[in-house]
Amino acid sequence: MKDQVAIIGVGCTKFGDQFDQSYEDLVFDAAQAAFVDAGIQADRIDAAWLGTYSPYGGHGKASVSLADALRLYGKPITRVENFCATGTDAFRNAAMAVACGMYDVALVLGAEKLKNRPTRGLSREGEHPYQTDGLTAPGIFAMAANRYFHDFNVGRESLAKVAVKNHKHGSQNPKAHFQMEVSEEQCLNAPMVAWPFGLFDCCPTTDGAAAAVICRADLAKTFRDDYVLVKGVGLAVTSGRPWYDPSFEYVGFAATRHASQAAYKMAGVHDPVKEIDLAEVHDCFTWTEISNYEDLGFCRKGEGAHFVGEGRSALGGDMPVNTSGGLKSFGHPIGASGVRMIYEVVTQLRGQAGARQVKSPELGLVHNLGGPGSVACVVVLGTA
Amino acid sequence: MKDQVAIIGVGCTKFGDQFDQSYEDLVFDAAQAAFVDAGIQADRIDAAWLGTYSPYGGHGKASVSLADALRLYGKPITRVENFCATGTDAFRNAAMAVACGMYDVALVLGAEKLKNRPTRGLSREGEHPYQTDGLTAPGIFAMAANRYFHDFNVGRESLAKVAVKNHKHGSQNPKAHFQMEVSEEQCLNAPMVAWPFGLFDCCPTTDGAAAAVICRADLAKTFRDDYVLVKGVGLAVTSGRPWYDPSFEYVGFAATRHASQAAYKMAGVHDPVKEIDLAEVHDCFTWTEISNYEDLGFCRKGEGAHFVGEGRSALGGDMPVNTSGGLKSFGHPIGASGVRMIYEVVTQLRGQAGARQVKSPELGLVHNLGGPGSVACVVVLGTA
Repeated sequence: MKDQVAIIGVGCTKFGDQFDQSYEDLVFDAAQAAFVDAGIQADRIDAAWLGTYSPYGGHGKASVSLADALRLYGKPITRVENFCATGTDAFRNAAMAVACGMYDVALVLGAEKLKNRPTRGLSREGEHPYQTDGLTAPGIFAMAANRYFHDFNVGRESLAKVAVKNHKHGSQNPKAHFQMEVSEEQCLNAPMVAWPFGLFDCCPTTDGAAAAVICRADLAKTFRDDYVLVKGVGLAVTSGRPWYDPSFEYVGFAATRHASQAAYKMAGVHDPVKEIDLAEVHDCFTWTEISNYEDLGFCRKGEGAHFVGEGRSALGGDMPVNTSGGLKSFGHPIGASGVRMIYEVVTQLRGQAGARQVKSPELGLVHNLGGPGSVACVVVLGTA
Repeated sequence: MKDQVAIIGVGCTKFGDQFDQSYEDLVFDAAQAAFVDAGIQADRIDAAWLGTYSPYGGHGKASVSLADALRLYGKPITRVENFCATGTDAFRNAAMAVACGMYDVALVLGAEKLKNRPTRGLSREGEHPYQTDGLTAPGIFAMAANRYFHDFNVGRESLAKVAVKNHKHGSQNPKAHFQMEVSEEQCLNAPMVAWPFGLFDCCPTTDGAAAAVICRADLAKTFRDDYVLVKGVGLAVTSGRPWYDPSFEYVGFAATRHASQAAYKMAGVHDPVKEIDLAEVHDCFTWTEISNYEDLGFCRKGEGAHFVGEGRSALGGDMPVNTSGGLKSFGHPIGASGVRMIYEVVTQLRGQAGARQVKSPELGLVHNLGGPGSVACVVVLGTA
């Protein structure tokens, strides 16, 4: 990108069962928190990007849903949708718009209300061909996990280690949906959802919103000293029907590999484990986090279970992953998640993560994985 | 924008009742035509933007629907949705991404299948709050037209002049849905849809797709000599519920005024009628085109009926508008329309519009208006 881009403010609502908060309430609260954090009023925003996947009841449809929630009228607002990578891809498009010199200050807002809609609301919205195959998200990722178990001689105990770790991190995060620790026994004995995933292997259904204010890096110092720089962004898309492709390996996702390689190249990262200090990765299911370690280059394919088993991805390890508590603790209000993960990494890079603080981090990674492993977006953020 | 951006290829399907063409067929045909026009293969594309409003049956949901249709795997693809300005806003985001130096060559594709879905399919998809008020698109714009008639002493005869003009233009366009002329009498005696709009005051329901290949302007000459430059882009959003706003004037749309002013500023346009040689504007209803003349600065508020009545916006006039035939002849497959309008202006600027050719145009305008007049996107294109 021609100009460097900086994050000067972030905001995040409490994630959870927000039946008493409207979509507009969540959007307003996240944006207002980011404005206060950046020390600006709404009128300083030149343009905005809204990440919402599934505009149930019209909320999240088009740009007007952001304009009306914030009374942000007469300005450019774009809605981006990209499966579960909606939030990070909205951020990516905003960053490129600032980098091209079109806007000085932009807002990125991810929001989703998943709770007060009918059962199977998400499936009804999209009616994507793969859903007519009878495949749901747990079913798709469970097939991959079973294949992975077979190929690499791994069992459900490794999944439990991810759940225990992320719930422990989340127990220290007042914004998480579930702020509780779980034991390996609880995970292994929980009701089965789709073998090998029990209840604690799946992220919950949640409402939430998060926001980031970005600007041209040369302007950042006029807002704050501890701004965060966008070092790299990468997006990659593979097939929406990967199981029709005989080359699909079922034990990981090429989209994540392509997206992370693009982001690493832009950020000048050669050895992610040595150079990156913390990562928020897409743990929609516990197994997904294990495969993410491998696809993001934190370890080799098949070694992800050891990576978590040895505590390397826990707080205190050499590559803390999902210090926020992850999707396991936060749920996955789809458009919100990526921006919420950016909120966590910015908070860590500023040294403001309290009990969850990683020691003096300088470089952090955010990763979303969308659809049946078809879309991945990676953002690398660093201290100035 | 830091770098200038050029259009090096465009493609467009036949618009119409495409029951025998799948969504993927339309996407493939439009993209392939643009690739052939640019003299490239698909593998030259570094990134893509998909504009689709309403992913019925999952088609158009997320980026994978473009990836699978084109077998464009491992690359970044973003879906943009912005009501009826979806196509132009997808183009705007792609242009900024190229301008920031992230990608050399990008594809913009707008596509929509509106025919083979249940009646009220669009309303069901979005369930936007204004639809629960009982307001449909003809109803909303008809209210505005009635107010305009009252304020400026205009009648249905002026609407008929827009329909006659655009259908005459469309009768010369082999890609139009309706390739037929209509008379003022036919328009005035047609069945009523929502007073003052009769059948010929409304655009039809249509399937279609269109594509554009863009690149950094300094690379354009390696592809072709007669490339077209992106001179200006502007997007503006107002309220999605304008009738709750006591300042809403009902006789025009502030979104268009804001968006065109931004695009004119970027393009260095001071007097649009003198400097711009042709325009494709959003004639979802005949009255909308009249108000667009005014909001785009072609004439003063209240003078739009005279503007069309005097033949100034017809082929041969000093500001030909909708030489393609407009939404009146092409219908409005939502995400496709903006890119289809860019296709027309590029074709005109290259001097390849055949019977519809404007004499030696150097600067052209594309305008989309979305939602209840809430979103507008303007693109100014010029010869190199």
